[in-house]
Amino acid sequence: MSSNNCYDVTTWPVGNPSEDVGEVINSIIADIKARQTVTDVNNGGKPGAVIYIPPGDYHLRTQVVIDVSFLRIQGSGHGFTSSSIRFNVPEEEWVGLHELWPGGSRILVDIPLGEDGEESKGAAFYVARSGSPRISSIEFSNFCIDGLHFTPDGSGMPPENTYVNGKTGIYVADANDSFRVNGMGFVYLENALTVYKADALSIHDNFIAECGSCIELRGWGQASKITDNLVGAGPKGHSIYAENHGGLLITANNVFPRGASSVHLNGVTRSSITNNRLHSFYPGMVILANSSENLVATNHFLRDHEPWTPFLGVDNGLDDLNGLLRVSGSNNTVVANHFSQIIDSESIRPAGATPVIIRLKAGVANFVSNNHVVAMDVHSTSSDSCFEAQVDALLTTQAADSLAVTAVMVDSESARNTILDSGSDAQVIADRALNAFRATPTVGFQAAHAFVAQ
Amino acid sequence: MSSNNCYDVTTWPVGNPSEDVGEVINSIIADIKARQTVTDVNNGGKPGAVIYIPPGDYHLRTQVVIDVSFLRIQGSGHGFTSSSIRFNVPEEEWVGLHELWPGGSRILVDIPLGEDGEESKGAAFYVARSGSPRISSIEFSNFCIDGLHFTPDGSGMPPENTYVNGKTGIYVADANDSFRVNGMGFVYLENALTVYKADALSIHDNFIAECGSCIELRGWGQASKITDNLVGAGPKGHSIYAENHGGLLITANNVFPRGASSVHLNGVTRSSITNNRLHSFYPGMVILANSSENLVATNHFLRDHEPWTPFLGVDNGLDDLNGLLRVSGSNNTVVANHFSQIIDSESIRPAGATPVIIRLKAGVANFVSNNHVVAMDVHSTSSDSCFEAQVDALLTTQAADSLAVTAVMVDSESARNTILDSGSDAQVIADRALNAFRATPTVGFQAAHAFVAQ
Amino acid sequence: MSSNNCYDVTTWPVGNPSEDVGEVINSIIADIKARQTVTDVNNGGKPGAVIYIPPGDYHLRTQVVIDVSFLRIQGSGHGFTSSSIRFNVPEEEWVGLHELWPGGSRILVDIPLGEDGEESKGAAFYVARSGSPRISSIEFSNFCIDGLHFTPDGSGMPPENTYVNGKTGIYVADANDSFRVNGMGFVYLENALTVYKADALSIHDNFIAECGSCIELRGWGQASKITDNLVGAGPKGHSIYAENHGGLLITANNVFPRGASSVHLNGVTRSSITNNRLHSFYPGMVILANSSENLVATNHFLRDHEPWTPFLGVDNGLDDLNGLLRVSGSNNTVVANHFSQIIDSESIRPAGATPVIIRLKAGVANFVSNNHVVAMDVHSTSSDSCFEAQVDALLTTQAADSLAVTAVMVDSESARNTILDSGSDAQVIADRALNAFRATPTVGFQAAHAFVAQ
Repeated sequence: MSSNNCYDVTTWPVGNPSEDVGEVINSIIADIKARQTVTDVNNGGKPGAVIYIPPGDYHLRTQVVIDVSFLRIQGSGHGFTSSSIRFNVPEEEWVGLHELWPGGSRILVDIPLGEDGEESKGAAFYVARSGSPRISSIEFSNFCIDGLHFTPDGSGMPPENTYVNGKTGIYVADANDSFRVNGMGFVYLENALTVYKADALSIHDNFIAECGSCIELRGWGQASKITDNLVGAGPKGHSIYAENHGGLLITANNVFPRGASSVHLNGVTRSSITNNRLHSFYPGMVILANSSENLVATNHFLRDHEPWTPFLGVDNGLDDLNGLLRVSGSNNTVVANHFSQIIDSESIRPAGATPVIIRLKAGVANFVSNNHVVAMDVHSTSSDSCFEAQVDALLTTQAADSLAVTAVMVDSESARNTILDSGSDAQVIADRALNAFRATPTVGFQAAHAFVAQ
Repeated sequence: MSSNNCYDVTTWPVGNPSEDVGEVINSIIADIKARQTVTDVNNGGKPGAVIYIPPGDYHLRTQVVIDVSFLRIQGSGHGFTSSSIRFNVPEEEWVGLHELWPGGSRILVDIPLGEDGEESKGAAFYVARSGSPRISSIEFSNFCIDGLHFTPDGSGMPPENTYVNGKTGIYVADANDSFRVNGMGFVYLENALTVYKADALSIHDNFIAECGSCIELRGWGQASKITDNLVGAGPKGHSIYAENHGGLLITANNVFPRGASSVHLNGVTRSSITNNRLHSFYPGMVILANSSENLVATNHFLRDHEPWTPFLGVDNGLDDLNGLLRVSGSNNTVVANHFSQIIDSESIRPAGATPVIIRLKAGVANFVSNNHVVAMDVHSTSSDSCFEAQVDALLTTQAADSLAVTAVMVDSESARNTILDSGSDAQVIADRALNAFRATPTVGFQAAHAFVAQ
Repeated sequence: MSSNNCYDVTTWPVGNPSEDVGEVINSIIADIKARQTVTDVNNGGKPGAVIYIPPGDYHLRTQVVIDVSFLRIQGSGHGFTSSSIRFNVPEEEWVGLHELWPGGSRILVDIPLGEDGEESKGAAFYVARSGSPRISSIEFSNFCIDGLHFTPDGSGMPPENTYVNGKTGIYVADANDSFRVNGMGFVYLENALTVYKADALSIHDNFIAECGSCIELRGWGQASKITDNLVGAGPKGHSIYAENHGGLLITANNVFPRGASSVHLNGVTRSSITNNRLHSFYPGMVILANSSENLVATNHFLRDHEPWTPFLGVDNGLDDLNGLLRVSGSNNTVVANHFSQIIDSESIRPAGATPVIIRLKAGVANFVSNNHVVAMDVHSTSSDSCFEAQVDALLTTQAADSLAVTAVMVDSESARNTILDSGSDAQVIADRALNAFRATPTVGFQAAHAFVAQ
């Protein structure tokens, strides 16, 4: 029914895209597959298709199931706006707002959730195909997936602040190759993007915020990249998570609060977390769990306090001894990072403890060098305005007092590490008989040093 | 009048896009707003729209005023070509040129300038909306904004070389969220892109050159990114400027000459300038003014001489004691940068001075480590061909003499800094009693050091 | 024949795009040029056009010749799938495969090769224009160029594994400005993308794999960027190569095996290789040949063994003394890189040698600091499944033995280098009288050092 493999959800004769764009897209996919019958005659393939979603509101009440390669679904607008701010505006003021909802090419996820709690049932886009080859080159581009509302989680938190609703934006279940997610917007989903078994996946230049978890690479995978995204999860979720991946490149992302972690790697090897801007309200910003031979370099870590009234008192359950960066694993490289720890000493947990910045929990032979730790003791403030509160906090040029911190703590389960120029002698807790250590020189050091060297 | 929120300036019934695309787009925006009346019935929003500008020439004689969220304006070609080179070709040779002007989806800014000198009056695209929420998710994508001509500035410089014309490409006046500027071309504008009060702005993969100033983030803002752009301003302007921002990520940009600065931060905190390639003809390439806790890492700085005849003798007024990187602020991290200073010692100002590479002007507790300074004394040459002159200069493998420089100079207003492995003892001017210092080892150092260590 | 400079290959009246899209596109280009007659009346230019290639199979039997600026050729799908894996599946199993070929907007390169062996004759897209100005702002976006088959190379390797077929995807012959290659897929071409004389070129976010060579910047050029690509060449070719370039920024790429090199610079100055993830099966991953003042920083290097049965025994001819990074040139900066060398000591060549990680072959005054080398001795394993083998290899958390390596070897033709914290005293082979050296501290160092400093 399409002469050139270009489809538009608003002109497809089956279904009503405003009422259920899922039914429409599934019908289009069926058409694509029915038409793709030729194989290997004169090297002819199955080219897939592009499905266009113009700007507009599209309820999705039927899960889209993708099992054909080379499908591109694209819109004309990532359409993010903050639903979180809106839901925390008193309802009587909504009438004065210019708009209430995200926009662009917007999918409204109204899908019925699985009664059995099966996570994949709540996915707007579900990609699955077994057999060979792996499904390839699916592209999601420049549209908005909006989970609409969060739901009560039993904590007493107002429902729209729970980050819970059982909905997922895109869920890829089976092994896949050369997928792309570019220019998308995700908002108010419990899970934005969940991909199992990825090879050469590119997640680039997306806006993924106000979701429980944002990017999760599960199962295993290799040679992928998560680059140049704006990302921020909820207090119980992951902003960027990967497990059992090798050769993953996580770079040039700007990761906002308030995820439980900014980047969490579990069983990941020979991967890079470089050149990201990371901001969190809790300890445990970057976690390398059972992860080895990774490079963590030239990232900017900022940990400060939640300034927005609705989330005051929420945290990720970790105390300040956990470190902003926690490493369990071996042979990792942690170099040239900046850490700013800007907290109220009254809030430190356990009370009276010296907060830790880099903690080596377990493993051997990590290389920690040339990291700069800034720590200041500030009085917490908060505001009813999310944006203003954050800007104020970020811009405060601290005339504050310095805060004593442990720049690097090496646990007894970790040994043979090399720690250079990442803290003064007093700031590094490590068994000097088991780890190589060179303190960052302090004033007065130079004289003795120069004397010896000449 | 659009059934699916997709507009094309060439088919819209109001106005003539070739004569005044501004009138056309304003009429489209009025239509979008008139049609967006439904709010919050069944979670239905105001989705905005996409306005398409096909390849072609479109004079803009009426300022486009954008006050509706979720608007995407897109073309099919960034259309950059060098107008500067063309205007410096003798006019009698123009007849032999393949083309004279930029192209692609090209806006020719013919807007009348404000008589009162109000900068925003000269903007082709003016975005403004007060009230709540902040205007969100405006996207500019893949078209060209051409200011056409520069005008006399009273200096005697030929008019087309002044970088002055009172025109701005895009001017965002009010607080905004989640904007995107991607794949655009900007040329011959006094100001290319000026954004006030940005939150989560993405300026990505654009070509912004031959403009007085290129990217200016003014007012205040947070959590934005300027990534993967090709940028080059004029001698009086900024290539990349931000003020009162927090959490800004400036990475993977290739910044050409001849901006007065490459990156200038004013009152910016907890931000990153990492992984950029920066090239300038003047000192003062990166300026941190009243800016603290920022990370400046793994950038490549090249400062050499203007090689193109029309701009010989032009500079930014700074002498060579200013440094290529100048820091006023505290707790910044400057690590793992490469600096090449390739200049003619005859040109040094003040005459006979030792040029400075990194200058810490004021503040405390900056961390400067592992920076590598290369400095060579070359004879200046110039050429009538802009491109060839630059390539020649860049490719000259210097058999030149070394040039003595001060790798790091710490002023008396700056103290408690840590300076490691960023210059030899002779190359670092800092009060050793007030700053921690470790000289980059030189040949012969090793013996003594090893002796002590064993 | 187009009223708005938008063309679609499937609706153009000349030629049959399925049979020969080259004829169609050339006819469109002729139309564009015929229609672009107006110049400089009222600042009116020659805007170029956009040519759309919908998803589908398009044989290309006539070379496309581009000699007009501001042309954008775009598709709706990069369409990569692994042809290499498919061709190494037993043919009797092909019937069970979901699909056999790449897809998306797919160009099938069926071009007759030049009998004279002239490389440019085998290019699907050939860009050439002499005179002034340089051809500008050509954009290739989001389509697939598929070379279909490799051919016998006389080595006895099965034809589809040779990476040889005389075909090139895009070949730019003449000086050019502000080109863009974004979102493309290239597969099974002997050369994917070859660009001579580039200025301000952007190669961004492409998928270029299973090609003999992927990205080659030849001749000379400046101020370009190769960013955020997924790239992997064949054993005789280059993944990323540049010659005589200045100011090139190579960042955020994920470079897979099995290129002879990952990044090879020849006569390149003042450029950056930063923040890439590089993986190779051979030594000689990054080569700086006659290249000076470059920055190589925060890259992750992994060299391990070919795990996939069809390519066992293939290599690039370099032995393990060549280093993973080899530098001939002066004043380069090599900082904050991670190197993992994970090989079977039985395979080391010359047998019994100590493998080298960083080798400074010739030149002076390179700065090598804060690099971390991990080396382990593993038993090689292989698999018939390309993907699984690689994932397994990447994820193996090595309980393996350490492997002795030379972290840095400085040849006698290289001198006055500075080598800091990049290997222990025993791991660095350098004439201490000619090079400045500080060993990475080892356990026990601290005591003596601290003693002196206090």
